[in-house]
Amino acid sequence: MIDVPDPIIINAFASVIALITTVISIPGARRLFIQAGLHGRDLNKTSDEKVAESLGVVCGCAFLITVFIFIPIPYIALWLERGKYTFPHHEFVEHISALLSICCMILLGFSDDVLNLRWRHKLILPTIASLPLLMVYLVNFGSTTIIVPKILHAYVGNDLNLGFLYYVYMGMLAVFCTNAINIYAGINGIEAGQSLVIGLSVMTFNIIELNGASPDAHRFSLYFIMPFCAVTAALLFHNWYPSRVFVGDTFCYFAGMTFAVVAILGHFSKTMLLFFIPQIFNFLYSCPQLFGLVHCPRHRLPKFNPKTGLLGMSFAHFKSKDLNFLGRLCLRLFRLFGLLHVEESNGEGKEYMQVNNLTIINLLLKYIGPTREPVLTTYLLIIQVLCSGLAFLIRYKIAGIFYDIVV
Amino acid sequence: MIDVPDPIIINAFASVIALITTVISIPGARRLFIQAGLHGRDLNKTSDEKVAESLGVVCGCAFLITVFIFIPIPYIALWLERGKYTFPHHEFVEHISALLSICCMILLGFSDDVLNLRWRHKLILPTIASLPLLMVYLVNFGSTTIIVPKILHAYVGNDLNLGFLYYVYMGMLAVFCTNAINIYAGINGIEAGQSLVIGLSVMTFNIIELNGASPDAHRFSLYFIMPFCAVTAALLFHNWYPSRVFVGDTFCYFAGMTFAVVAILGHFSKTMLLFFIPQIFNFLYSCPQLFGLVHCPRHRLPKFNPKTGLLGMSFAHFKSKDLNFLGRLCLRLFRLFGLLHVEESNGEGKEYMQVNNLTIINLLLKYIGPTREPVLTTYLLIIQVLCSGLAFLIRYKIAGIFYDIVV
Repeated sequence: MIDVPDPIIINAFASVIALITTVISIPGARRLFIQAGLHGRDLNKTSDEKVAESLGVVCGCAFLITVFIFIPIPYIALWLERGKYTFPHHEFVEHISALLSICCMILLGFSDDVLNLRWRHKLILPTIASLPLLMVYLVNFGSTTIIVPKILHAYVGNDLNLGFLYYVYMGMLAVFCTNAINIYAGINGIEAGQSLVIGLSVMTFNIIELNGASPDAHRFSLYFIMPFCAVTAALLFHNWYPSRVFVGDTFCYFAGMTFAVVAILGHFSKTMLLFFIPQIFNFLYSCPQLFGLVHCPRHRLPKFNPKTGLLGMSFAHFKSKDLNFLGRLCLRLFRLFGLLHVEESNGEGKEYMQVNNLTIINLLLKYIGPTREPVLTTYLLIIQVLCSGLAFLIRYKIAGIFYDIVV
Repeated sequence: MIDVPDPIIINAFASVIALITTVISIPGARRLFIQAGLHGRDLNKTSDEKVAESLGVVCGCAFLITVFIFIPIPYIALWLERGKYTFPHHEFVEHISALLSICCMILLGFSDDVLNLRWRHKLILPTIASLPLLMVYLVNFGSTTIIVPKILHAYVGNDLNLGFLYYVYMGMLAVFCTNAINIYAGINGIEAGQSLVIGLSVMTFNIIELNGASPDAHRFSLYFIMPFCAVTAALLFHNWYPSRVFVGDTFCYFAGMTFAVVAILGHFSKTMLLFFIPQIFNFLYSCPQLFGLVHCPRHRLPKFNPKTGLLGMSFAHFKSKDLNFLGRLCLRLFRLFGLLHVEESNGEGKEYMQVNNLTIINLLLKYIGPTREPVLTTYLLIIQVLCSGLAFLIRYKIAGIFYDIVV
């Protein structure tokens, strides 16, 4: 028998190489993207310099290549050990289908960036890309039983077979993860930054759980999340203030799908959602605008003041009477909890209202006042890190109250 | 046991649906592509109308969605029959990895179309995309032994283990298939047309072989090649003269990779190459220009005469003394076999030469003279069909002379 180093070590090593090559290759790719017309202007800057868009595709491809090359390593080790006839095809197929979903999502994300697809596509695309994953889940596990929290045992029993609904849940997880990152965006480094924090949190969780009840699932997750963190860090390096490249929808889709994939196949979707606390908050806070209850301008990113160089809240202006009952209710609730900046005015005999755009970024600006862009990103990332700490606390200290076994 | 119809019937049905939806959705996609700036001018037309480029990505995505939805069907049938513990994971993983390679190739092809990558990338990208396939081959079959033609038995034995070289061969097959279609291009309908003829030939071959020695491999191939033919036919419908959409490198990559994938996993790579006779001829004929022995202009497509509306040969002009020994040898050989139109002239004391661009399209024009574009495409497709007939003749009548068992 040949002594092979632990695949995790090899994967970590491959991730470092991926990090370095991605950092090196982004500037070259940047020129190519600008030549191809894939560029935009940074709305939060005074300069008119072209910033290359959707560089997420480069970092997605770097991820794919790293994982492609890594694929055989854990299996060769197993193969040498156990021989051909006990080859774990069912694990292998998870590995490949996870990659297929991610690859498909990068393709669709890049198409979205290039073709500027419509909003409804943003919900359809992740659903399509998660199909291979759901198919593999169907034939590989087929289990759609969830464990019920203790307090509900008396009503529905210890476990509950969700059947088809479980697949709907998994599909929605992919849609949520991709879009949650996509709507928490707009300032330099925030998309890549939050993804890196979540990625590192997942990595930490997986490493802790290597000594837990199902080490194989967490080992599987590590094989994906380590190269993911590497290429994301490389992208963040170039995307940090002042950004020379934008990450594009491609990156948000890629990151979201990677999280959904490891959560589903690693069986820790509830823990994954804990790492998404700021994103969930941002999504819920955004709902009145996303669902059209409150006027939603084309861009919701903070407003740049070219005189001071600081970012401040951006606002949605609308006629007070355009607000329907539900919209009014949401705004009143937000105001009650101090989550809303409201100004009312009169003009031409009509009442106007302006509220801050409903994103976590504007909300933070309401509390801290106008701020320099990199400082704002740093604060938001600190919040993300603190929320990850909270997630670990919930997962390891509080979840036991609701569940006997935490999965 | 539930009585499920043969998965091949279901696949055929799904393919018809894919054909119809793709035909319907291309015009809408066309507008989106033109808005996004992905358009070009047809050099062989007098009108300046914008033609959308790289619509191959639409037909690639339609293919992926069809196969994604189809994936579980053959397995559910097997699962119901055999029970969970004999689930054929090794077949399933082939299915998924084939899709991964194709999906990855569509992604890279579309990036190439958008970013205008360089020539060297055209060799690297298919190699990267075929990695998952090779990985699966490695862990699933691992056999790298080929059967030696009878006449060589005395020298090397009945079979030969190529080892690592076999993987190089498979990787090169992917590179060849993708690029062979890519360089046999330039007139309306030729890329999609040739791919459809090859696809239908493979389909016919698979159907014949369903009663042969290894029906499973051909069944597997059919699951891919039927939806492929469907989406290709839909694309051809819109790409036929006068083209409203161009197929782009995306399509050539997608088609080539699909052929490589079914040939490798279906174990009929030699037969596949027989269906590529016109492409192989075109590649060999192009070599002096591809490898820089003879001057190669940026475009080698036929020359359009706006007065007559006919296509004629296009030429490469160069100084006679710029031709090195190898280039001279190639041209002399081609001339000997009547495969070259040469004109020599003098100007400013220097000798100039002009030869037709070395593609099968220009060669046909040399024989038949200036022709209308759709007629030219039709002739070339008839040649493709005749060559497929020849391929079947070789496969079923002549191969027996060289091999005892034909695989």
